[in-house]
Amino acid sequence: MSISETTKKKESKKKEPKSKEPKNTQQKQAKAKTSKKNDDAALIGINVKKADDLADWYQQVITKGGMISFYDVSGCYILKPASYSIWEYIKEWFDAKIKSIGVENCYFPVFISEDNLTREKEHIEGFAAEVAWVTHGGQSKLEKRVAVRPTSETAMYSEFAREIRSHRDLPLKLNQWNNVVRWEFKHPMPFLRSREFLWQEGHTAHLTKEGAGKEVHQILDWYAGIYEELLAVPMVKGTKTNNEKFAGADYTTTVEGFIPATGRGIQGGTSHCLGQHFSKMFDIKVEDPDQKKEDGGEGKSKHLFVWQNSWGFTTRSIGVMVLTHGDDKGLVMPPRVAKIQAVIVPVGITAKLGEEGRAKLEEQVIAIAEVIKAANVRVHIDSREGYSPPWKFNDWEMKGVPLRIEVGPKDLEKHQVCTARRDTGEKGSIPITQLGTDVPTLLDTIQSDMFKRADAIYREHRKEITNWDDFVPALNSKNFCLIPHCEGDDCEDEIKKMSARTDTGDDVAEDARAPAMGAKSLCIPFDQPSGITLGETKCTNPNCKALAKSWVMFGRSY
Amino acid sequence: MSISETTKKKESKKKEPKSKEPKNTQQKQAKAKTSKKNDDAALIGINVKKADDLADWYQQVITKGGMISFYDVSGCYILKPASYSIWEYIKEWFDAKIKSIGVENCYFPVFISEDNLTREKEHIEGFAAEVAWVTHGGQSKLEKRVAVRPTSETAMYSEFAREIRSHRDLPLKLNQWNNVVRWEFKHPMPFLRSREFLWQEGHTAHLTKEGAGKEVHQILDWYAGIYEELLAVPMVKGTKTNNEKFAGADYTTTVEGFIPATGRGIQGGTSHCLGQHFSKMFDIKVEDPDQKKEDGGEGKSKHLFVWQNSWGFTTRSIGVMVLTHGDDKGLVMPPRVAKIQAVIVPVGITAKLGEEGRAKLEEQVIAIAEVIKAANVRVHIDSREGYSPPWKFNDWEMKGVPLRIEVGPKDLEKHQVCTARRDTGEKGSIPITQLGTDVPTLLDTIQSDMFKRADAIYREHRKEITNWDDFVPALNSKNFCLIPHCEGDDCEDEIKKMSARTDTGDDVAEDARAPAMGAKSLCIPFDQPSGITLGETKCTNPNCKALAKSWVMFGRSY
Repeated sequence: MSISETTKKKESKKKEPKSKEPKNTQQKQAKAKTSKKNDDAALIGINVKKADDLADWYQQVITKGGMISFYDVSGCYILKPASYSIWEYIKEWFDAKIKSIGVENCYFPVFISEDNLTREKEHIEGFAAEVAWVTHGGQSKLEKRVAVRPTSETAMYSEFAREIRSHRDLPLKLNQWNNVVRWEFKHPMPFLRSREFLWQEGHTAHLTKEGAGKEVHQILDWYAGIYEELLAVPMVKGTKTNNEKFAGADYTTTVEGFIPATGRGIQGGTSHCLGQHFSKMFDIKVEDPDQKKEDGGEGKSKHLFVWQNSWGFTTRSIGVMVLTHGDDKGLVMPPRVAKIQAVIVPVGITAKLGEEGRAKLEEQVIAIAEVIKAANVRVHIDSREGYSPPWKFNDWEMKGVPLRIEVGPKDLEKHQVCTARRDTGEKGSIPITQLGTDVPTLLDTIQSDMFKRADAIYREHRKEITNWDDFVPALNSKNFCLIPHCEGDDCEDEIKKMSARTDTGDDVAEDARAPAMGAKSLCIPFDQPSGITLGETKCTNPNCKALAKSWVMFGRSY
Repeated sequence: MSISETTKKKESKKKEPKSKEPKNTQQKQAKAKTSKKNDDAALIGINVKKADDLADWYQQVITKGGMISFYDVSGCYILKPASYSIWEYIKEWFDAKIKSIGVENCYFPVFISEDNLTREKEHIEGFAAEVAWVTHGGQSKLEKRVAVRPTSETAMYSEFAREIRSHRDLPLKLNQWNNVVRWEFKHPMPFLRSREFLWQEGHTAHLTKEGAGKEVHQILDWYAGIYEELLAVPMVKGTKTNNEKFAGADYTTTVEGFIPATGRGIQGGTSHCLGQHFSKMFDIKVEDPDQKKEDGGEGKSKHLFVWQNSWGFTTRSIGVMVLTHGDDKGLVMPPRVAKIQAVIVPVGITAKLGEEGRAKLEEQVIAIAEVIKAANVRVHIDSREGYSPPWKFNDWEMKGVPLRIEVGPKDLEKHQVCTARRDTGEKGSIPITQLGTDVPTLLDTIQSDMFKRADAIYREHRKEITNWDDFVPALNSKNFCLIPHCEGDDCEDEIKKMSARTDTGDDVAEDARAPAMGAKSLCIPFDQPSGITLGETKCTNPNCKALAKSWVMFGRSY
């Protein structure tokens, strides 16, 4: 599983899910065939409130917002330009970061031989239930079926063994931006759980444990950076407990997000130190350079198995962003990942204005756009004819464009334009002469306000709890619970059982598991509250006799 | 087939090829398992001459040059950083170009339902023999098998039908950078014929034939630009004959390259105007905006089917570059796509130099690298210990680094560095004070010289022939033949038969078809020689009674 979004699979239903989505896909496609031209209903806006039906709301927001189209293979979705462009911004940002520490991009085949995939027992056990198998090429049955990669450890580490011949070849740092397939039988959900998704998977080998560990944390900081700086989504950084870490890893670090509407957690990305587990299995070793020095290069050389990391970040992040910021009007895009950051809508075009007045307005609109563009803002003029300004306002709000700029004859007389923020709805005006500075500044403000609001909400929903009686009520009020905990595996399982609920609640995934879902440990946050005295403070689970080792964050999760 | 590299498939052998490559793969892997640490033979250099055994040479150059590693699924290869980085430079360049004309990137699923794939009979006939089918997810047999995309027309055009509701939605211009799979049973060859390859596929819809046509040519110009400006590989632009165009397209434009070592042609990329063929099939239509104006918006509206294009460019281009420029020492990289453009090798480090002298040299080497880096040159210092300068020179030559810069105490006394060009082997020196200007200039010169040399060779091998008796001898001397031709399908087939050869020659692909391969029409070059008088000049095929319509370029090809 390694860099999977969910590190353990304990159940796998083998039937195709009867979810809402495939039905709608079919409906949509039927509709498209019969009367697509009259399908203007799609333009009317989001007709359900986020608080009333999160699942329906989510589906409407991502389809009407132009992010996703449904597709006739269940669990697969079309990433339209509005969402793919977010992925491009993420790629650009993260790719520069990893290249700065010497990571090189490469490409490994989409197919993995069964021999190679099953080489590591634990690994294949984690994936066996969801591997897509190619059995035929054209009309011919293949002699040996091949797996569509669910992740590339087994494909890559044989190559690592060939490439790493000496400590001079270390560190080896490879990354690929690719597609992976996990043929899950749970209910699919665009971005959050799809059978194919896009990601990057980094795989590195180091001479020392310390070298590997430093990188694991550096990568995790950048994963948090993608969320916090680009997507304006707050994260909690931490380490997975033994129960939740990747099987075979020394340790797993994670960024954990929060979906306020359901009070559930979502794993944002994981960076694993695999230790020497895989290197021993794949025989990736080098001569110990230090030992060689000590004995003057003579004597029998000692071999060291390399220390490996793997880390992955997926298109799931886009779904987390939508769920965090979207509102009853539709998407709300953080400026840094918005394809269109500011949209100019010409207003006040009345019959009275006349041809000449119209031409003049148009000219000024273009001039204003040029000024804004010169300030490195991605600006778009909505010059569509046949649509009223209010209709356009709604349309851009649905698509989440961060800033609307209205330009009309009256404003121009006052040498200003009117603005409306998508995140708060706040109206304002900017003098024409100030556009080049004020528009970028306002976009920065929107970006930082969006993060601050989401961060405040997340903080409010992280409760420090020391009395078990407060645990389940806090969970039921859509909170995470930080508790002094022994870090014991069994104790964690017990807490999960004790906190299972029977009400279904508003469950965005409509996951069959959800009604009975208990709280699992999300991470041991790096940022530890005070209040635990080691050797004194007890574990919060009343049935547990052990002492607390740390504050552990528990919550219901996706 | 549309944007396939080879537009027609007339034969398909259903057995796994008994090629050299899988055997070597197994050998390599066996070797890797048993004695990988002693595999230093790989570092000795290329031990076969390009002119003596092109197939072996090619394999050595791409593996020892660090571009490709073999893999245990036949026909699939690992693109290592040295080759993937070339793809990144190509992407960056071309992506900016297409975005400048409003193309948007997106992502469609890797899987295509059988219903959708088979919707268009000609389309599926072109691909049926080489589609990889997923039949199982985990242990479960899928209710309906799904295809791994060989190309995305059928996946995308259903969506086009849903997205395009009005002429206002036109042009719609989508592109994706992705992986596609064609489970060919012919002998695989890294880059040139692999079962999985990376590419971009652009799919656009236009209101008018003219709008579509303009784009087709713009894209083709950029495909030629990738080859000529980045890869320093000359191309001939032209239109495919009726026989060779994509079935269903109005017309296919192409860039055609030339491999001097075999005298064979290679298709570099194709840009198709699909006309209204697919739009009629997928029902992609809009109301005619002009007609609406004429009758004042009343009366029954007339529908127009959109005009579509598709265009694709693949990682095959990297193989063409290697075959064009590589020499007996290994790769020769054009500077613009070289990950390392200049390598600095410290020289003259003798015992006499002493600790202090060494430290001083090291310091100066770093300072020199900084100056070169500041001039936007991708520079690398080879500070590996335990390797002699000549060994390093060979190593970088094998990897094709365009410029070697030697820095030693003697040079520094003279305030200069020594240089060696990879393409010509020419030695020189640059004053330290001139590094910031002379190094970039020298790289530009290398880039342009590489293109000029390759272009001169290609031109020499394009023979204008008007007498049939000269045709086959010219082909056998590794030339292309431009002949006045009637553009008739049957005549073309006849020329193919008449020019088939029985000697095997030096055939890089070791393609079983090659020994008997006749010349096919490569394209009708845009750049037409003079000498044809329409209505007078006869077709060059002596058995053909028709008149010539144009100069058509014929050649043996990959």
